[in-house]
Amino acid sequence: MRLLVINPNISESVTSLIDAEARRAASPGTVVTTRTASSGVAYIETRLESLLAAPAVAEIVAAEGGDADAVLVAAFGDPGMPGLKELVDVPVVGITEAALATASLLGVRFSIVAISERITAWYRDCVDRAGLTSRLASIRSLRDPLRGIGTVQEDFREDLVRLAHDVVEHDGADVVILAGAPLAGMAREVAHRLPVPVVDGISAGVAQVEALVRLAPGTARAGSCARPPAKDNAGLSPALAACLAAPHTTGADR
Amino acid sequence: MRLLVINPNISESVTSLIDAEARRAASPGTVVTTRTASSGVAYIETRLESLLAAPAVAEIVAAEGGDADAVLVAAFGDPGMPGLKELVDVPVVGITEAALATASLLGVRFSIVAISERITAWYRDCVDRAGLTSRLASIRSLRDPLRGIGTVQEDFREDLVRLAHDVVEHDGADVVILAGAPLAGMAREVAHRLPVPVVDGISAGVAQVEALVRLAPGTARAGSCARPPAKDNAGLSPALAACLAAPHTTGADR
Amino acid sequence: MRLLVINPNISESVTSLIDAEARRAASPGTVVTTRTASSGVAYIETRLESLLAAPAVAEIVAAEGGDADAVLVAAFGDPGMPGLKELVDVPVVGITEAALATASLLGVRFSIVAISERITAWYRDCVDRAGLTSRLASIRSLRDPLRGIGTVQEDFREDLVRLAHDVVEHDGADVVILAGAPLAGMAREVAHRLPVPVVDGISAGVAQVEALVRLAPGTARAGSCARPPAKDNAGLSPALAACLAAPHTTGADR
Amino acid sequence: MRLLVINPNISESVTSLIDAEARRAASPGTVVTTRTASSGVAYIETRLESLLAAPAVAEIVAAEGGDADAVLVAAFGDPGMPGLKELVDVPVVGITEAALATASLLGVRFSIVAISERITAWYRDCVDRAGLTSRLASIRSLRDPLRGIGTVQEDFREDLVRLAHDVVEHDGADVVILAGAPLAGMAREVAHRLPVPVVDGISAGVAQVEALVRLAPGTARAGSCARPPAKDNAGLSPALAACLAAPHTTGADR
Amino acid sequence: MRLLVINPNISESVTSLIDAEARRAASPGTVVTTRTASSGVAYIETRLESLLAAPAVAEIVAAEGGDADAVLVAAFGDPGMPGLKELVDVPVVGITEAALATASLLGVRFSIVAISERITAWYRDCVDRAGLTSRLASIRSLRDPLRGIGTVQEDFREDLVRLAHDVVEHDGADVVILAGAPLAGMAREVAHRLPVPVVDGISAGVAQVEALVRLAPGTARAGSCARPPAKDNAGLSPALAACLAAPHTTGADR
Amino acid sequence: MRLLVINPNISESVTSLIDAEARRAASPGTVVTTRTASSGVAYIETRLESLLAAPAVAEIVAAEGGDADAVLVAAFGDPGMPGLKELVDVPVVGITEAALATASLLGVRFSIVAISERITAWYRDCVDRAGLTSRLASIRSLRDPLRGIGTVQEDFREDLVRLAHDVVEHDGADVVILAGAPLAGMAREVAHRLPVPVVDGISAGVAQVEALVRLAPGTARAGSCARPPAKDNAGLSPALAACLAAPHTTGADR
Repeated sequence: MRLLVINPNISESVTSLIDAEARRAASPGTVVTTRTASSGVAYIETRLESLLAAPAVAEIVAAEGGDADAVLVAAFGDPGMPGLKELVDVPVVGITEAALATASLLGVRFSIVAISERITAWYRDCVDRAGLTSRLASIRSLRDPLRGIGTVQEDFREDLVRLAHDVVEHDGADVVILAGAPLAGMAREVAHRLPVPVVDGISAGVAQVEALVRLAPGTARAGSCARPPAKDNAGLSPALAACLAAPHTTGADR
Repeated sequence: MRLLVINPNISESVTSLIDAEARRAASPGTVVTTRTASSGVAYIETRLESLLAAPAVAEIVAAEGGDADAVLVAAFGDPGMPGLKELVDVPVVGITEAALATASLLGVRFSIVAISERITAWYRDCVDRAGLTSRLASIRSLRDPLRGIGTVQEDFREDLVRLAHDVVEHDGADVVILAGAPLAGMAREVAHRLPVPVVDGISAGVAQVEALVRLAPGTARAGSCARPPAKDNAGLSPALAACLAAPHTTGADR
Repeated sequence: MRLLVINPNISESVTSLIDAEARRAASPGTVVTTRTASSGVAYIETRLESLLAAPAVAEIVAAEGGDADAVLVAAFGDPGMPGLKELVDVPVVGITEAALATASLLGVRFSIVAISERITAWYRDCVDRAGLTSRLASIRSLRDPLRGIGTVQEDFREDLVRLAHDVVEHDGADVVILAGAPLAGMAREVAHRLPVPVVDGISAGVAQVEALVRLAPGTARAGSCARPPAKDNAGLSPALAACLAAPHTTGADR
Repeated sequence: MRLLVINPNISESVTSLIDAEARRAASPGTVVTTRTASSGVAYIETRLESLLAAPAVAEIVAAEGGDADAVLVAAFGDPGMPGLKELVDVPVVGITEAALATASLLGVRFSIVAISERITAWYRDCVDRAGLTSRLASIRSLRDPLRGIGTVQEDFREDLVRLAHDVVEHDGADVVILAGAPLAGMAREVAHRLPVPVVDGISAGVAQVEALVRLAPGTARAGSCARPPAKDNAGLSPALAACLAAPHTTGADR
Repeated sequence: MRLLVINPNISESVTSLIDAEARRAASPGTVVTTRTASSGVAYIETRLESLLAAPAVAEIVAAEGGDADAVLVAAFGDPGMPGLKELVDVPVVGITEAALATASLLGVRFSIVAISERITAWYRDCVDRAGLTSRLASIRSLRDPLRGIGTVQEDFREDLVRLAHDVVEHDGADVVILAGAPLAGMAREVAHRLPVPVVDGISAGVAQVEALVRLAPGTARAGSCARPPAKDNAGLSPALAACLAAPHTTGADR
Repeated sequence: MRLLVINPNISESVTSLIDAEARRAASPGTVVTTRTASSGVAYIETRLESLLAAPAVAEIVAAEGGDADAVLVAAFGDPGMPGLKELVDVPVVGITEAALATASLLGVRFSIVAISERITAWYRDCVDRAGLTSRLASIRSLRDPLRGIGTVQEDFREDLVRLAHDVVEHDGADVVILAGAPLAGMAREVAHRLPVPVVDGISAGVAQVEALVRLAPGTARAGSCARPPAKDNAGLSPALAACLAAPHTTGADR
């Protein structure tokens, strides 16, 4: 299967981390293609930054998603979700929703460990939108400024492991989610040091979209994730305009 | 006060409706400037269309919002909210959140009357995000295809009035919200025919931002609505880039 | 417009604070009349005290509310709400619901700063009833006994400012509500010292009822906020009895 | 034990129904005294009417509650609750909360059958306040005007039985609550005709307060149900003023 | 009335505590019979242990419940609930649900004091299932290993009293529930030392089932607590098989 | 990988359906072993039947789960979950939670189509426990009695397809879950006839446990899904007793 992975951050160093972890996580037959958003910010921390990144993600989904079997949006916080699901006929999944789905099977309550305090409000929105706030034990985050977005793991590994222990001991977490693409791949390195299962967004995302492709559940031609009804548009790229021009909606949502 | 009103839809016919109602609703000293999104779709009905409209709204906020005393985003569903609140130092409010705040003071439970069935999922998200789902009595909508977005009021006035009666009689609504910029101004025409208070997003939005400007509650320099921490960005317009380059964040969210 | 402001506490010193802030907040054309409850307690802190204050508020609404364009119930906790909305044909709003509606437009999560610990349970009820508990970051309160209800601001200004900083730094508040009529007017004095917008119940209440009057959304003749169906009553004042004798209920709630 | 039962409605015909059912339900050693509110309305249907009834109930609790072992407030909707719990040192319970507690042990989801449509909004508030909305299958009500409040049972018995069947067959109720003091005693007459357990507020209330008295759980001298902190008051009856003057609050809520 | 009390733990020392408290709590005419689970663990702390205990409880209910007027399942966490309610025609109640129902009448928010940290996740499930999470102020627990399950009260009385004070002072509890059958009877000994009402599961359970028997609300022949529809079964004891073979389901749930 | 699939129903005909679908869904390297509960009922429809089935499932997990890489509990409603997760060091997943996790990635709201009305209460519990009630559009079910549990698909295929259309058109479902092991494999046959993605519990379960095994998130040695603390037990099978005797709990949950 062909998996299109999109880094909504403009940081190539993060794209490298994502790409490496996606390839480690992929099944033998999966071909991973990773793309980086052409516009936006180095590292999405806020709702505004997510909003500004979403159109660049949409552009890549529109241009290349149709040739893939599934699309993975690889920034925690899931910029553009769930709207991007309307864009193409293949599954489009964010790493947060994939991580939450995965964590939900490994325990009853989970916590999120994040790399900045400002980012936690946006993550909380994401868990709310998933309907899983009652299963969220806590969100804890680093408090120190980052030296560089590509080196968070090496700079803060011990702090992050300590936070993971804290959420288990003090907040009642059964599962820990290491959140944020800059932490891609760290879970497999520290899992043996943690007393509960640990989930990485990128590998959980790859596993979940592979599962969806294998299940072949069918395409949304009705409901809120079907293509939008055709209507005039302006100022959109040819790829986006083409997606919007060919809706599949049927009776059910007319 | 200077009020910048933004139509996130690209339809000039809707902009005219919005502008007229905003001027009717504005206090004597308020100067209304109305802008239309330069890219997006004729009428936003889905999460995807909202996502595609948001950057055009953000662009206008970034370019002109700083010269206004407040900004009103005039599409029901509030494209770009609450992220847009981070962009400038003046209040940025969506007509949905304004209508919900207004309705919440007029009764205990409210219903939304909408112009298409597809749009209701997106509206429901909006009420959820506001935390007010427990006060939502129902969402009812037209089911017939629209003849044109600028003529919904004249084409469907009686159907909309009937839906408003239905939500009171069958769903337990104490207040009716006529949702969608294409219905701008209709509330004041039909209020006398309805047995409960009726709220129009545009006029509620104007009233609410005027209230906020008068209250002068201060600017967010911390918390999740402050400017994002400064970081590299790419591919953004000069106006947006300028906004992101000058954050006001202080100790509290570092 | 004529605005009737009612202090549900029997304290004239608090009435003075309320009246002064209401006049500062009112638009040029608004005529503010402030009344004090004739029975009840010096400062409402509990559900019981609220219950005992409500009939005195209802009495004033019944006697004078019909001559006003709107009524503002000026004790945080909103004694008598939402029942008082059934009493007259003009908007009757409490300062808590007005402050919550206002805060909901200024940020995503808000905190309440209160003047006694005992009062917080009652405030929590109020936020629950508004459906906004998911947006409540925290309630923090003074812990020391008050020297006098009319001098809380001067006696505890620095403590209250510190609590406001605490809810931003530790609880994730985007907005701070300074709660309680004894704090009337303090928000405008300390706003510049706080890193997030700050909301005062009295001025938010004045702004909100002015907005409602301008919007003219119509009267509830059906639904749960319409006048009660006519029936026998006893022991009520002539003004209250008159209100109950002339219901406007129509088909929808028969 | 001495049980004080208070009818918050001014209708003596309803008091008779309440009194008869309370005596049928009481254990051998229980002495039932029933009082009728001296002011208010014939039959409480709305939040406003509940608010107007509450002080008359409070007056009776203050004057006679201290001589009883427990107090039962016998109008569905629980006027004055939970504030009245602060007033005396013995348990003060409403028939709604008692019926809900009882129903919660007999099944997973319950429905309420009510005697007027207008009353349902107020009942819904009550279930919300109890936190049990997720267990409420439905509220269904009579739609026809009542001939007289004391004859609802005879006038509408078959309609009420049909509504009880409807909530089981269509709404998923495991338990039916026949709501409203005017239905006092009807449950025991129709239980054999219903396919699920049926709960009557009055008898459930008597059983619950008897249980509380036997359990002797102790008095609230802290927390939100303790007596309010002493403060000035005015315009209250001597009995109420005496209750407020002698608080038992201790360290925990100072 | 005949009351069958079942200890789902295999510990006879706990059975003794339960039996003694049940007899102290029972009304004069109540005959208490106490049984101990024949299989399971010494003290149920987890969901798995609860699951393993449930069939032994079901066996006793099936074998002896039909001869009783009510059944009380006497382990906090209510192993087998609410499924066991389907088994016989008499009320089957767990001590947790009984304690929660009782506490809900004594205050607005309650806390649970537990004897081990591990047990708290299971208790939290129980409160969630009851729908009462919004009224749960907190769960606090002992942290030290137990010396023996039959001696928890004497070994940790002062720690438990301190925890009870903590939930009132720091968490906002109006009522304290001393949770776990090993604490049976302790509430009546320490009530005078606590500033809020205190609830014991065993005595609350006895009082509640006595109330239900007196109320005679009728049996579930429809809804989700009726006997299951008849179908093949295997490997069940004769008593259980007999219960499953004689369903009472009627039209409503066919 | 070795996957142990357990049918909690005693019906061999259902086991055949489960086994066939599990093998169709499994990846090439997965070895599927399917077991049938030795005690319980032909088809679990109620909470009681689930409770009676759980120990037979636990017995199989204890006896054979340790030799597998993952365990799938193949009855919708997830008998024994989440308690069974405590039993062995490999992932133990129910088909309901797997279907919900899968559906949550395919759309925003989902509906469940079930084969009997009685079963829906139990399914609703399951969705509640997962925290996903806000994303449940509806549960619809067959109403006719089943001819035989192994032939539901052939007997009712068209009715089930119609129900699937109904939930999309009337209830707002973006995804349909065909619930119940007797429907195993039907989703892949009818997907092309439905306007939205359709999820089958068995194949979703296989895909999810394969994903978990590949992710290797680590084992719970703390938190609420770790092995229970060691304690006396009685009457358990040697396999179960052995599991309970060798806990892995560490500091975090002591």
